[in-house]
Parts: sequence; C-alpha cells; structure tokens
Amino acid sequence: MRSPRTYTLAEIARRVGGEALGDPDTPLSGIATLQSAGSGDLSFFAQGKFRPQLDRTAAAAVIVRRADRDATTLPRIVCDDPYAGYARAAEVFYPLPPPRPGVHPSAVVEPGATVPSSAEVGPGCHIAEEARIGERVVLGAGCAIGRAASLGADTRLYPRVTIYHDCIVGERCIIHAGAVIGADGFGMAAEDGRWRKIPQVGRVVVGDDVEIGANTTIDRGALDDTVIEQGVKLDNQIQVGHNVRIGAHSALAGCVGIAGSARIGRRCTVGGGAVILGHLELADDVHISAATVVTRSVRQAGRYAGVYPMQEQARWARNAALLRHLDALAERLRLLEEGIEEAGRRPEQER
Amino acid sequence: MRSPRTYTLAEIARRVGGEALGDPDTPLSGIATLQSAGSGDLSFFAQGKFRPQLDRTAAAAVIVRRADRDATTLPRIVCDDPYAGYARAAEVFYPLPPPRPGVHPSAVVEPGATVPSSAEVGPGCHIAEEARIGERVVLGAGCAIGRAASLGADTRLYPRVTIYHDCIVGERCIIHAGAVIGADGFGMAAEDGRWRKIPQVGRVVVGDDVEIGANTTIDRGALDDTVIEQGVKLDNQIQVGHNVRIGAHSALAGCVGIAGSARIGRRCTVGGGAVILGHLELADDVHISAATVVTRSVRQAGRYAGVYPMQEQARWARNAALLRHLDALAERLRLLEEGIEEAGRRPEQER
Amino acid sequence: MRSPRTYTLAEIARRVGGEALGDPDTPLSGIATLQSAGSGDLSFFAQGKFRPQLDRTAAAAVIVRRADRDATTLPRIVCDDPYAGYARAAEVFYPLPPPRPGVHPSAVVEPGATVPSSAEVGPGCHIAEEARIGERVVLGAGCAIGRAASLGADTRLYPRVTIYHDCIVGERCIIHAGAVIGADGFGMAAEDGRWRKIPQVGRVVVGDDVEIGANTTIDRGALDDTVIEQGVKLDNQIQVGHNVRIGAHSALAGCVGIAGSARIGRRCTVGGGAVILGHLELADDVHISAATVVTRSVRQAGRYAGVYPMQEQARWARNAALLRHLDALAERLRLLEEGIEEAGRRPEQER
Repeated sequence: MRSPRTYTLAEIARRVGGEALGDPDTPLSGIATLQSAGSGDLSFFAQGKFRPQLDRTAAAAVIVRRADRDATTLPRIVCDDPYAGYARAAEVFYPLPPPRPGVHPSAVVEPGATVPSSAEVGPGCHIAEEARIGERVVLGAGCAIGRAASLGADTRLYPRVTIYHDCIVGERCIIHAGAVIGADGFGMAAEDGRWRKIPQVGRVVVGDDVEIGANTTIDRGALDDTVIEQGVKLDNQIQVGHNVRIGAHSALAGCVGIAGSARIGRRCTVGGGAVILGHLELADDVHISAATVVTRSVRQAGRYAGVYPMQEQARWARNAALLRHLDALAERLRLLEEGIEEAGRRPEQER
Repeated sequence: MRSPRTYTLAEIARRVGGEALGDPDTPLSGIATLQSAGSGDLSFFAQGKFRPQLDRTAAAAVIVRRADRDATTLPRIVCDDPYAGYARAAEVFYPLPPPRPGVHPSAVVEPGATVPSSAEVGPGCHIAEEARIGERVVLGAGCAIGRAASLGADTRLYPRVTIYHDCIVGERCIIHAGAVIGADGFGMAAEDGRWRKIPQVGRVVVGDDVEIGANTTIDRGALDDTVIEQGVKLDNQIQVGHNVRIGAHSALAGCVGIAGSARIGRRCTVGGGAVILGHLELADDVHISAATVVTRSVRQAGRYAGVYPMQEQARWARNAALLRHLDALAERLRLLEEGIEEAGRRPEQER
Repeated sequence: MRSPRTYTLAEIARRVGGEALGDPDTPLSGIATLQSAGSGDLSFFAQGKFRPQLDRTAAAAVIVRRADRDATTLPRIVCDDPYAGYARAAEVFYPLPPPRPGVHPSAVVEPGATVPSSAEVGPGCHIAEEARIGERVVLGAGCAIGRAASLGADTRLYPRVTIYHDCIVGERCIIHAGAVIGADGFGMAAEDGRWRKIPQVGRVVVGDDVEIGANTTIDRGALDDTVIEQGVKLDNQIQVGHNVRIGAHSALAGCVGIAGSARIGRRCTVGGGAVILGHLELADDVHISAATVVTRSVRQAGRYAGVYPMQEQARWARNAALLRHLDALAERLRLLEEGIEEAGRRPEQER
C-alpha cells in the first residue's frame, strides 16, 4: 500500500534503528510482503522459509537480520529483529491520521462533560454528563460515552464503541468498533426458582496503551472493579467477565472467554477461542493454546494445551465412542494385569 | 461504591427481610466485599472460605446466615441467604436511574410509531413505522427499533441495541449495548453449488423479565418464531439461532452458541462457551458445564460435562496423539484378552 | 406469516419451477410449516419424518418431491427439491422492501463521497470522504462507512454496520446489524517485554452475493488483503482474522473463529463454534463439524470432526481424569503385551 509520502533507505534505517546497506538514497514509498512487493516497496525477511521469495522479490529494499546481511544484494536494512523493524517502518510509512479537532454538529455533549478543544468527536456521538474526554482523543461516528466515564489523552475509539458510566480508559488506547466496556456483569441470586439481578456497581478500569478489538465486551465489576492493566492487547469478540484482572502486557486472541473473577498474570498469551473458567488464577508468563479450556489455576509459567484432536469424521466417531467408555477400557486393562499377576503367582501343578 | 443516599441498619434489614442485630441506627452508605469495605459500608458473609476476611473486615455491618449469627460482633443482618440478601440490599443502595421522559431532539420517530410520554428516547435513536414503545421504557443512545417491533413497559435498552422489525420484547427486560434481536436466521437451500437464501419471516418473541447481554444476537425464526421465555438471563456474546426456544428462568453464560431449532427446558443453566447443536432438546433442570459441546438431546435433569482436560503442552501432545489412535489401543487390548482367554482354554499338553 | 399479497397455486408453481396438481386457482397468502399452517398457507414436505404432520396439516397446499407426488390429496406443487422450492416460494411471498431512495436528513455524507439518488441512506448514517455507495444500496440506521470504502449495487446493510476505510464490498451483499468489516488485524511485534502494534494497511475485499451475520467481524489485512469470495455465507458472531481467504460459496455457521492467514477452500462448510488456527489451508469441499478445532491443514475433501463427547458429569470426570493419563495407560498395555510375548518365548522348563 502506498504511503502518503516517500522516504529514503537511509531515513527508514535511522527510524528503524538499523544499518543501511546499498544506495542510501533508494526511494521507498510503502511496505509489502516479499511476494507482493513492487518497485518502490520496502519488504522484510524474518523467517528462513521465505528464502525463495526473497530470491524472487521485486522489492526495492529489504529488512534483514544481521545473520542474513549477505542473503540478498538488494539495498537493505540490517537489524536485530526484522519483524520488529517492519513494525517500526510501518509506523513511519502509515501514520494514523491526526485528530481533526472539534465536535461534529450532530454529536451531543451533555452539560458537565469535559471535551478539550484538541479532541475530535465524530458525527452522532453522545457524551453523557460528567464524562471526561482527554486531549487529542478521537471518537469515531456514533460512540456513546456514559455518565462520568473518562478517556485518557490520545486514546482513539473507532465508530460505535460504547463506554458505560463511570468506566475509566487510560492514555493512548485503541478501541475498535462495536466494543462495549462496562456492561453489567452476569450476577444473579437464585430466589424461589427465579433469578434476582444483583446491581453491578463496580467499574471497568483500563490502563494505558491497551488495544481492544471489534465487538469485544468487558463487564463492569459487581462491587470491586474489573481491571485491564497497561499494555494489554485484546483481539476481537473477547468476553471478559466481571471482576477479572488481566495483567500488564498480556495478549489474548479472538473469541477468548474469561469468566468472572479470573486473574490472568502479566505477559501471558491466550490463543483464540480459549475459555478460562471463573475464579481461576494464571501465573505470569503462562501461555494457553488456542481453544483450550482452562479448568484449574495455573501456578507455573509455561505452555498449556487441551483440545480434542480433529480427525476424519468416521474415525473421530469411533474414537469418541471409545473415549466415552475409557473407564471400562481402563477396568479391562486392570483385570488383565491382575489375572496375569495372579497366574504368575500360581504354583505350576495348579495350572 | 457510594450510594446516592444513606440508610440505617434497621432500614436495610427490613428491606432485605432479615433481622438487625447491634445498633439499628448504624448508618450505611454503600456495599462492598469484606476485603474492600471501609467505614460506612455494608458487606456480606456467604461462604465459609471468607471467614478470615470476616475477621479482618472494616465494614460497618455484615449480612450473615442464621447459622453465622454469632460469627461476628459487628452490627449485622441475619437472614436465610446472605447472597440473596446482598442482592436485595444492593437494589436499595443502587437503584437504576429513573427514566427521564422525553424524546431527544436528535432521535427520529417515524410516522405511526407509538412512544408514550413516560418513555425516555436517547440521542440518535431511530424508531421505525408502527413500532410500539411501552410506558417508562428507556432507550439509550443510538438504538434502532424496527418496523412494528414492540417493547413492553419498563424495559431498558442500553446504547446501540438493534431490534429488527416485528420482534416483541416483554416488560421489565434489560438489553445491553450492541445486542441484536431479530437478524435473519442462517437459512439457505443448496442449489447448483450455490446457496439460495431463504427469507426469514418468523419473529423473536422475548418474555417478561429477560436480561440480554452486550453484543448477544438472537435470530428471528424462519417461519415460526424464536422464543425466549420469561425470566431467562443471557450473558454477553451469546448466539441464539433461528427457531430456538429457551424455557423460563434458564440462565446462559457468555459466548454460548445455540444452533437452530434447539429447545432448552426451564431452569436450565449453560456454562460459558458451551455449544448446543441444532434440533436438540434439553429437559427442564439440565445443567451444562462451561465449554461443553452438546451433541445429543438430554432427556434427564442433571449435570453434564465434556471438555478435554488442559495439560502442560508436551504431555497434552502425547495424550492427544494416543487419543487419535484410541481405536488401535482398544484393539490391542482386545487381542490381549483373547490371547489370554485362549491360552486358558488350551490343554496343558498342547503348550 | 401473511404475505403482502395473495397468489394462486399455479402462479407459485410457475415461479418455483414445479408442477401444480389440484385446483390451480387455490389462493395462497403465505408459507408455514406443516404443523403451524392454517387456511391459505402453502407448506412443504421435504423429509419423511414429517409424514405424520403432512397427514394432519391444515395447509391449503404443499410442495412435495416427485416421489411424494401422491403422498397427499391436497393441492400441491411437485418439484425436484421441495426445500429449494420453499426457498423460491418464500422469495415470492416475502420480497424484501425495495429501497426508499434518499439520504435521511440526519445522515452525514462527507465531501467527495458518492451516493447515487437510487440509494437509501438511513437516519444517523455517516459516509466518510471518498466513499462510494452503489446503486440501490440500502443503509440501515446508524451505519458508518469509512473513507474510500465502497459498496456494490443492491447491497443492503442493516442498522449499525461499520465498514472501515478502503474496504470493498461487492454487489447484492447483505450485512446484518453490528457487523464490523475492516478493523485492524491482531498484529504485534514483541519488543522488550511489550507489544509494538503493527499498522494494518491491507483491506477487506468482499465479493458479490455474500451474506454476513450480526456482530460478525472481519479484520483488514496486515499488508495484503483479507478476501471473502463471492457467494460466501457467514452467520452471526464469526471472527475472521487478517489475511484470511474464504473460497467462493463456502458457508460458516455462528461463532466460528478463523485465525490469521488461514485459507479456506470453495464450497466448504464449517459448523458453529469451530476454530480454525492460523496459516492453515482447507481444500475445496471440506466439511468441518461444529465446535471442532482445526489444528492442521486439510488437503483432502471430506468430513472432519473433533469434539470431546458430552457425558453425565460424574462419568465425564472419571473419563477426563483417565484421558489425562492416557500415556500411562498405553504404557501399561505395552508392558502387558511385552510380558505375554516374553512368556510365550520362554521354554517350558523355565516356568
């Protein structure tokens, strides 16, 4: 994709913190994969399996690791981590559009709300009483910010994000379309065969530098707060129950569900579609594979998994049926073992 | 959290239906957990494991069960079920803000729609032709109510809820932000290697006292209706397929998926992330554990489960590989059993 | 449900491409299931198990397959596939309301956007700079169309759909409420224990005749595009990661999650709640059962499954515990086999 402007190899190398090899004035106007790159594109070579693509690429320049310094004769940027280098270069080529300060005439800002003149409030937004919007915040079309909620400086909401009353979002956060922060937690007391709703009066508190994906939902706490610490990254369609705490710099992939009062450590990763049951604790640096159901606390850093392996359907049906009777199978094995042991003990004449 | 006003112990005891012990004039201004409570807070002690927290709490008063009448010397409210007592007290301390009657100037009410003067219609709402809004209904910002849809009295929609045409929602319901009621069911006929869409002309009919979580979706019926009976509680991000029926007072946790035409009984509970396949029936009082896949009808009340147990990744990989060949393992066991049986039958001289 | 107008049996037979038997002037005013049908209703009989309902139906006429030509004496339409026939008849009885051309006064169309006079733009919509809306497109209330995005002719968006900048949607598509097309993919580079966001600069490109369910999310590509080919049908609450490609005429049921860069073939079906891991490939005509986790590429057309079978909870707990130690069980079996083999090899005198 074309960048709004063109840079030289030397400029990008400096921004990436790498070393430019080849013509430092090579003009670069965008980033692309090795396969898709055309003239003027910068690309990157981060994994050996893409070597054939490196050999054939039409890119104007490539980011490579130090060990691959001589893997190509193209103009190149040599650095420690070409993937991180690509991330940095992409920030240079594709900066987010700056806020366009001002409140759209169709937006509604209630009395007592604070909206600084540096903020951009899109069409159809609603900012309720006492809400506080930070400097340079951008609100896409149709966002709803509840009573006394607050958004830190430089935070950006895409269209149709809902922040319920009293919730707090830090600085430099990104929240994608359709996300809902602060809906009531799922709290009810059983009473005469019916459910009595328990008012949810905690908040959601989101730290700085958090990203929240499209249509993700984070429930407010029942009494205490639900807390998302700084630097956490949440993908789309994640559900975070009330009173959950997610530790700093953890990253959760799409469709993860976290039941109430679970506590996730720092620097954890959780694969897509995983489910974490309520009131569990995950230590720091725990890594859960996609679609795993976490049914107990994990006190030890490491990698954990648990999915039933996919198979051709007929064979799956056979194995699943056996699995339902694994207890019977284990019992048969035990009887065999016993029988053999007993046979070994019997004197020869008896047999 | 601070309540808008302060109550005495005696007042709360009366509202909760419990007995006040200690100074009946103890002023209470909010509810908190035993651990978080400060001066002026009411707390509750419902599970023995929190006993150490009870001993250390700074709460001004505590709700306890009859058996724990003497478990503390703090001013207290004694009742049958402290958790239900907490629910009732929370309703007193934290009442929902009453409707602020009126249609916001930025809302659009189409000709033929009925909006009583007691209803609150938030900014940017759209109420289509022939829709009927009940008394004291509250619509948050940006809700879209389709043609001829109807909402019963005292129902409350948070921002950005969509109700499709002709759907019916009962009285005293709560629907959280981003929920979509009445989108087309997933109905298609295969025709020459393509899919022909089948118009979905049934409705969604939601009973009284139903709560629907954020970003939950309930599809309209193909021909007959999708029905959510009274008192059902649905958490966030649940998907309910067309022509499903959910029986009264059932509660489903977040991220549950229910395929088309499934029928769930009354007073069932379904754990988070569970999947219920199409055209199945669950009897009344069936309880499904989190993340379980319900692949057959359940005719018998009781508890059901089915998740692959999580393990440290290396061990999971070993066990998963064995599971894929469980049929071979069972066959080996059978051969062993046969061999031993045969050996037992063989006359001594033959051996 | 009543149709806006009444048809004769002969008219519907012609539209369905079937043969009318019985009074060709039988008036028909709607479609219903065999069980729900009343006078004036057309029904259909597509599966033998509904035979008792056919015998008792109050329908005015029935669609049947050729083999069931004489299964009823009611006026009937005989055709190859009664289910497809029902789909076609339903289109006749229940046509979508035609667009009501015009931009609602509360909608905001930015300079440089193209909106033809045949399009219907609902209340509160926002159409950003350079966006291109096709002929006869319908936008429900509160849709947000990003900068330079484009929607093909006759495409229909229900309320509160968000299309991010630069994304492309084909002709005759249907997108349900709350769907988000083009949010950032989940791309980050690890850097000093933190995550550095990688700008996502690819697009989402959606082909013609695609249907996208309520609250479904499709992420934009990191560099290249995310592609949904023509005729694909996506149910509600599906998550499609960045750079995924879904082949033509594939159908995915609710709550499916597809991780980044997965490639799904043509005419595939994926059951509800299934998870497809990243960078995998599914061949054409692969069918994945509900809730299956696809952990490896599938090169061969066919049916695949993998869910842990649900059981009564106590038995599940027993079997799940055994499964966690399947490796130990297999080892015990191996020892037994070895022991027996060795015993068989030992000379008689030794025993």
